[in-house]
Amino acid sequence: MLRDITGLHVVAQTPFHPDGAIDFDSIDSLSAFYYRHGARGLTVLGFSGEAQKLTPDEAVAVAARYVAASGDRRIIVGVSAPGVAVLAEVTRQVMAEGADAVMICPPRQVRTDEDLLRYFDEVFARIGDTPVVLQDFPAASSVRMSVPAMARLLDTFPQIGAIKEEDLPSPIKITRLRAACRPVRILTGNNGLYLPQELERGADGPMAGFSFPEMLSGVYDLMTAGDRAGAHDLFNSYLPLLKHEAQGEWGIAIRKEMMRRRGALASAVLRGPGPSLDETDLAELDFLLSRMELPG
Amino acid sequence: MLRDITGLHVVAQTPFHPDGAIDFDSIDSLSAFYYRHGARGLTVLGFSGEAQKLTPDEAVAVAARYVAASGDRRIIVGVSAPGVAVLAEVTRQVMAEGADAVMICPPRQVRTDEDLLRYFDEVFARIGDTPVVLQDFPAASSVRMSVPAMARLLDTFPQIGAIKEEDLPSPIKITRLRAACRPVRILTGNNGLYLPQELERGADGPMAGFSFPEMLSGVYDLMTAGDRAGAHDLFNSYLPLLKHEAQGEWGIAIRKEMMRRRGALASAVLRGPGPSLDETDLAELDFLLSRMELPG
Amino acid sequence: MLRDITGLHVVAQTPFHPDGAIDFDSIDSLSAFYYRHGARGLTVLGFSGEAQKLTPDEAVAVAARYVAASGDRRIIVGVSAPGVAVLAEVTRQVMAEGADAVMICPPRQVRTDEDLLRYFDEVFARIGDTPVVLQDFPAASSVRMSVPAMARLLDTFPQIGAIKEEDLPSPIKITRLRAACRPVRILTGNNGLYLPQELERGADGPMAGFSFPEMLSGVYDLMTAGDRAGAHDLFNSYLPLLKHEAQGEWGIAIRKEMMRRRGALASAVLRGPGPSLDETDLAELDFLLSRMELPG
Amino acid sequence: MLRDITGLHVVAQTPFHPDGAIDFDSIDSLSAFYYRHGARGLTVLGFSGEAQKLTPDEAVAVAARYVAASGDRRIIVGVSAPGVAVLAEVTRQVMAEGADAVMICPPRQVRTDEDLLRYFDEVFARIGDTPVVLQDFPAASSVRMSVPAMARLLDTFPQIGAIKEEDLPSPIKITRLRAACRPVRILTGNNGLYLPQELERGADGPMAGFSFPEMLSGVYDLMTAGDRAGAHDLFNSYLPLLKHEAQGEWGIAIRKEMMRRRGALASAVLRGPGPSLDETDLAELDFLLSRMELPG
Repeated sequence: MLRDITGLHVVAQTPFHPDGAIDFDSIDSLSAFYYRHGARGLTVLGFSGEAQKLTPDEAVAVAARYVAASGDRRIIVGVSAPGVAVLAEVTRQVMAEGADAVMICPPRQVRTDEDLLRYFDEVFARIGDTPVVLQDFPAASSVRMSVPAMARLLDTFPQIGAIKEEDLPSPIKITRLRAACRPVRILTGNNGLYLPQELERGADGPMAGFSFPEMLSGVYDLMTAGDRAGAHDLFNSYLPLLKHEAQGEWGIAIRKEMMRRRGALASAVLRGPGPSLDETDLAELDFLLSRMELPG
Repeated sequence: MLRDITGLHVVAQTPFHPDGAIDFDSIDSLSAFYYRHGARGLTVLGFSGEAQKLTPDEAVAVAARYVAASGDRRIIVGVSAPGVAVLAEVTRQVMAEGADAVMICPPRQVRTDEDLLRYFDEVFARIGDTPVVLQDFPAASSVRMSVPAMARLLDTFPQIGAIKEEDLPSPIKITRLRAACRPVRILTGNNGLYLPQELERGADGPMAGFSFPEMLSGVYDLMTAGDRAGAHDLFNSYLPLLKHEAQGEWGIAIRKEMMRRRGALASAVLRGPGPSLDETDLAELDFLLSRMELPG
Repeated sequence: MLRDITGLHVVAQTPFHPDGAIDFDSIDSLSAFYYRHGARGLTVLGFSGEAQKLTPDEAVAVAARYVAASGDRRIIVGVSAPGVAVLAEVTRQVMAEGADAVMICPPRQVRTDEDLLRYFDEVFARIGDTPVVLQDFPAASSVRMSVPAMARLLDTFPQIGAIKEEDLPSPIKITRLRAACRPVRILTGNNGLYLPQELERGADGPMAGFSFPEMLSGVYDLMTAGDRAGAHDLFNSYLPLLKHEAQGEWGIAIRKEMMRRRGALASAVLRGPGPSLDETDLAELDFLLSRMELPG
Repeated sequence: MLRDITGLHVVAQTPFHPDGAIDFDSIDSLSAFYYRHGARGLTVLGFSGEAQKLTPDEAVAVAARYVAASGDRRIIVGVSAPGVAVLAEVTRQVMAEGADAVMICPPRQVRTDEDLLRYFDEVFARIGDTPVVLQDFPAASSVRMSVPAMARLLDTFPQIGAIKEEDLPSPIKITRLRAACRPVRILTGNNGLYLPQELERGADGPMAGFSFPEMLSGVYDLMTAGDRAGAHDLFNSYLPLLKHEAQGEWGIAIRKEMMRRRGALASAVLRGPGPSLDETDLAELDFLLSRMELPG
């Protein structure tokens, strides 16, 4: 199912109303926005999708709405959870709703190579043949996976069709993974901050969030077409804002504000507990934008 | 609601069938066992209750069954979760099912005194006047709460009626809490390993698990009756087994095995992922028991 | 001593020979390079100065050589250590060698506001009136200091004359510190990645490393002169490389390579254990540089 | 050098004068005390030896004094440090002073099996053929080593002659290590709390601290002589105090007080920062002792 996953797969935001309720209508407008700007599919309920603030029932409902708006595009659903029971139950439900795959980042109790293999033994005993994107994101998960351990994991579990690689420095790790692992798709996150180098070292596309998804898809397209200089130039032109959005959860607030301005969602609010932007933040953002020269 | 909480409140196990399904009938026999051996109430779905292996729906069902078997005794339900949404939803449901209070251990993202206050601001904005037991258990949660921070928390939130104190060395911390905090009930955990000293320094009773709850209630009763020597002697007579059960999740497997032997539950199995006992473990346990001289 | 600390204070590299020995001659050439490009002083033996790879005796020798090459400029020496004994002994020795201040980041055992106050009680009982830069860098130290805790720390210890602020998002934290704390100098790190916003929110200058220190001093000078647009434009022109160097210890290898090319030090090697650059890394760097249009 | 290491090797305290200076004379009296009560050798400068409070020069001086007082008994010196440079330098010096081996616990940056192998590659490149005791103590180090990783480490580095095993539950891990690893000595720590089970599963002796070392050596001797019941009974008779001392650094204060009472050292003080005992603590200890019936 994941064999041909290439190109931009946006890590989608979860939109909320100012009172904290999920804004399902904005899921439709967000979907349209992402697809209009080059997304071939979406990853919903990742870390930057505020997944940890939802109940399992809400998570399934959000995923189902994204599936409904996806046409024939691929929807991957983040199902990472501290316990396998919740992970398995949410996986069952979102796959029944029509998701194409789930994304799993091992939980922090996984601390050795042996733990890692055992954890996925347990997971796949529950979710069977569900296609899986393995997320390698130690900054958020505290789980560090070595390249030999990942190679062994891939050999053991054919269900893992893709890796979301965001262990820094990611370019180095991609080079090492490509040398050590069976063929597997590698998509990259970290807000796209290292996208040109990641693609040059063998990544298959970005799996990241940014308020200008057309930059992410554009860099991929240019690089794929052999225009390395053009890819770098496009990337660099957006870099001040890209970096500005890459500031943890506060950066997500910036991203939502930018997407609100672009008409992609109704409210920029994050569900609490979470940051909200004040006048200083907004004025700072305005000035930053005023010094950028965006293409088109 | 928690003003008069004193004496033994057992941290209850969650019983499973060998296939991993919840064994609801054993909740009834476990309840009877706990109450027969001196428990005035129970804390269900704590760390040693394998709470992290249940879905929210399962957690509510377990709590409801324990409530149904409680007569007029107090049932406290552990609702700690990485996200406030799940915590609030489970709290709402278990209180509707008849629980008396919830127990909350702050999640690992809480890292400063300011974070702590903010976290409970957020929590109580969702759960209102629900009576709360604050769990201070840094070995499991990674959250360390200083005495001044806890005093401030208690002053800010009258809903916190009791503390489950298990920050080591707990006796020292109890002395400091008693000197610094408004009146509050303090119950103690850590498998009861430090119970005599904790009671001598002002704790109101054990909130712990052990396969011989009569030791926990007995030590409390003797200490309350002024028989300090008797309390120590009773405690010491069980200490080899008490310590043997205090070995993390493997110790929980020992405890369940002991309670199975005592007829309190049908199967000693833990839900996976979790340890199971082999012949060496069982023979070791038998020999340990053979060198103990238990009262009665 | 630190009352007037403003402007660029470079976080200096520690140069090594290919065999791992300290390259003392390159300390002189590095010093000249930093001062020629706008540094008003240096911070030596910070995290990116590979301090953790030196013995205490080596650390003192490196600091002494930087002092000897400083003219009348300020030398601040990182002395953070897991134990207070080593911290105090190295402080004593580097101050005797002529350092102007020490920089201290609390160790990971500091986990509450109370711990923090106690830790610095212990530290200042040993180092007396030594001027101190407080480093707030949770990504490396695991210690998170809230704004109220920092305000109290500053009120308690007049010896703290400056803060190196690198808790992300740093701009937000600077705004909060300026509102809550007594007057104190705030310098900023994180490789300079957020320098324009940090200065706009009240920082007094960069305390960071970058292979083009003239960008860091230039942005400070332009911002101070009121040319906000010019500051942003200068910053943005270097951003692709700035971000490339901001990749942990591998980024330090890039930075040393760039400074070797610029004649600032003899060898780009890091002391082991540490990364070294291969042909792919170097070609990648060359291409990245080829797409930048640097001023002058 | 470590091939025949069996029996009690006490983890020695570091004695201080009330002003915090090292009390070298008490090193002699402590040594005599340990040897008189069955120690075949000592491990100095472990976690409970307050090693982290010493400068490297002090550490070498303490080790040298213990060597001078050792007669022909074995002295193992803890040299764990965040950086390899300090580890290698202290190793060089203590081996020159006559130590028999060093004990190394990998530092927290070691997070995968691959990291572990690389770390010891780096270490042994510096310390060559020095005999090493590998310390497996995740509660203090945060490094978890799986059994397969340890087996590989032992196969790679013949210099590792013994393991100090204190990953809980240690009895289970010893069974697994014995099944998976080449012949190696296994000594056990954790204050001796699990000693009978550890010996029954194949450990070669205790490497722990306790104020009654004769219990540790006695249990070993009885178990070795085939008197399993006697070993358990002796162990159980000391268990209340053993457990009382097993309360982190505060427990070390208890242990030092007990050894002061027994004439083994002049002052019970810990070097700051560290706990000191107040009247409540001392009265509590007295009562605890009054309920124990010690042999002889």
